[in-house]
Amino acid sequence: MTMEERVWSDVEAIRAQAPLVHNITNYVVMNNTANALLSLGASPVMAHAEEEMEEMVGIAGALVINIGTLSTPWIQAMHKAQQAAAAKGIPIVIDPVGAGATRLRTQTVHELMQAVSPTVVRGNASEIMALEQAGTGAKGVDSQHGSDAAVDIAQRIAGQHDCVVCVSGEVDYVVSAERQVRVRNGHALMPRVTGLGCTASSLIGAFCAVNAKTFDAVTHAMVVMGIAGEVASVKAQGPGTLQLYFLDALHNLSASDIRQRIQVEG
Amino acid sequence: MTMEERVWSDVEAIRAQAPLVHNITNYVVMNNTANALLSLGASPVMAHAEEEMEEMVGIAGALVINIGTLSTPWIQAMHKAQQAAAAKGIPIVIDPVGAGATRLRTQTVHELMQAVSPTVVRGNASEIMALEQAGTGAKGVDSQHGSDAAVDIAQRIAGQHDCVVCVSGEVDYVVSAERQVRVRNGHALMPRVTGLGCTASSLIGAFCAVNAKTFDAVTHAMVVMGIAGEVASVKAQGPGTLQLYFLDALHNLSASDIRQRIQVEG
Amino acid sequence: MTMEERVWSDVEAIRAQAPLVHNITNYVVMNNTANALLSLGASPVMAHAEEEMEEMVGIAGALVINIGTLSTPWIQAMHKAQQAAAAKGIPIVIDPVGAGATRLRTQTVHELMQAVSPTVVRGNASEIMALEQAGTGAKGVDSQHGSDAAVDIAQRIAGQHDCVVCVSGEVDYVVSAERQVRVRNGHALMPRVTGLGCTASSLIGAFCAVNAKTFDAVTHAMVVMGIAGEVASVKAQGPGTLQLYFLDALHNLSASDIRQRIQVEG
Repeated sequence: MTMEERVWSDVEAIRAQAPLVHNITNYVVMNNTANALLSLGASPVMAHAEEEMEEMVGIAGALVINIGTLSTPWIQAMHKAQQAAAAKGIPIVIDPVGAGATRLRTQTVHELMQAVSPTVVRGNASEIMALEQAGTGAKGVDSQHGSDAAVDIAQRIAGQHDCVVCVSGEVDYVVSAERQVRVRNGHALMPRVTGLGCTASSLIGAFCAVNAKTFDAVTHAMVVMGIAGEVASVKAQGPGTLQLYFLDALHNLSASDIRQRIQVEG
Repeated sequence: MTMEERVWSDVEAIRAQAPLVHNITNYVVMNNTANALLSLGASPVMAHAEEEMEEMVGIAGALVINIGTLSTPWIQAMHKAQQAAAAKGIPIVIDPVGAGATRLRTQTVHELMQAVSPTVVRGNASEIMALEQAGTGAKGVDSQHGSDAAVDIAQRIAGQHDCVVCVSGEVDYVVSAERQVRVRNGHALMPRVTGLGCTASSLIGAFCAVNAKTFDAVTHAMVVMGIAGEVASVKAQGPGTLQLYFLDALHNLSASDIRQRIQVEG
Repeated sequence: MTMEERVWSDVEAIRAQAPLVHNITNYVVMNNTANALLSLGASPVMAHAEEEMEEMVGIAGALVINIGTLSTPWIQAMHKAQQAAAAKGIPIVIDPVGAGATRLRTQTVHELMQAVSPTVVRGNASEIMALEQAGTGAKGVDSQHGSDAAVDIAQRIAGQHDCVVCVSGEVDYVVSAERQVRVRNGHALMPRVTGLGCTASSLIGAFCAVNAKTFDAVTHAMVVMGIAGEVASVKAQGPGTLQLYFLDALHNLSASDIRQRIQVEG
């Protein structure tokens, strides 16, 4: 199969299997993330009570942990959920939102990754750099560093945790200890919509739930994110309409959209 | 009056009275639920601090409790709010999101209903079945059972609690101990938008606030939900735009929309 | 410079500087608020953990505190954040959502303002009146009072705290101890979208971050809110589409939009 056929095969598998993706995510993006998963064909659940983490992970096909609006009880639930996910053997995706901006965030994601090695980490360049070393001067949840600068660090993290790291930005880098690809799909208006990075992490969860080749699953998810953004941008007149047309584009995505637009290098 | 005239009479009453609907609901849907209530003409409030439950219920015309993203402090607030609502005599709507998926959810909704009998319960087939008996194999917040299978259980619950139960799905069943109607309005794209079930529960709250005949109020709310979805689907090109056009449709709903589209049997 | 030139100068400064606006706000509006700040050109962060308040304020250009969905841990974080903001000297905007509706809300905002005088307070007439005196019969988060009635109270509060108070409604009053202007921009459909008042408060934060003349910054923010609403209403067919076109309008706002539409008196 060509890469575009493999991307499409994953999309069809998600639509057929509707994998349940359990998200412990931030308040800002919950609605959009749930809608993006539904539009893609997956089945979202958002839950954060420590008491139900084991059971919820027990019926899930992937776990996505996003630290965007942290507090102590949620951190405890994140730990419990990833232990359950590791025991069950389902993929764990970590989204280190704002790592580097505060010690709470940097330390929380560090402790989560020390406790259980994730399957995938996806963040912008600042966030990925903060995973290796605090004090990069990350300003909130924005990226101040080019993606390129973070790729070396991503590769080291991938090696340490035997995981796949995605450094997203104008170009998305998908990195393992041995491999690297660059996904050039996407549109300049996408960073003007809050939480599309968080959405990418949740879509990665859906792709990993149906494709055990993690590197491919992450790459395919980023291709689909970028292409849906491109399709949406054709009609969008700003960030407001882009957000909605993005969901429509995920729902209506076709094999020919992928064939015509896919841009992956390396 | 014909049924379509009674539906319209309730819509006009909501627009004229703007009843305050107090929602203790989940993080995922708060924004959409508030917007749906506003678009219909009601007045939403979302509040969950135990300290303000009595006062907030004191100025509300209906209380809607939705267990979609539970945690201990919220459960305490739910109990306090429904006690205040029962004391004041305003309608209580329970939405048992994900009941059956985890013990926390099944048990919480069970305890809420044992403490105070609700006025209305609305859920999908799996959730309603979980109210009678745990272990139905509910997978998250999705329904795996046909609505039909849940109607007998709904009727028993309605009898036990002297309440109205709505089993929503492709066909919505409105059930009391003695009666049953089927609402056939709606559109296949609606389940692809997160939280439209939660929205239905909140609209039921608004209809119950202006119409003391609970069975009729629930039926009318489900008719309006379904018709707004149908109107929205005419222009929608996917789940993203459906969500927005749905709000526009609620705002612009006319007597003739209802007359032309209403589909209620039994 | 004329006023329209000064408004535009602030918009250009926000787009150039992308000031980080730290929001401790309610669950209902977080997504929309973040998107409005991004569409305007600012950089939003939402965070509420007490442990990270000092660091997050440390990298922010303004702090916005919104009491829409209160609970004890959040109140503690609000106090900590405003102390850090006062120590750093960045603007603090208070949005007293639902003040007057419950003692928890009225008291919380009272205590916040006694602990640290805010730079700006923005609310509807009921909320502003509740700041001076409980028991105005405020019904939830809606305004039952004309804005005019609240202006005298706003002026007293502005004098006591040496701050600017904005009483928003059909006409927005911007009030200091010595001055008053009325912004007549806006559209009748805007109150049918949840949280546009909260959005106004966050945009005020962005304008204050780039313009040290607080009275002007607040006035300019309300002009931009109102004009974006007007531009959005041209295409909107209801509250659903208005919400999206509003974001597009913020993103596409031009000097000529402001020149042609600005309506400020006094």
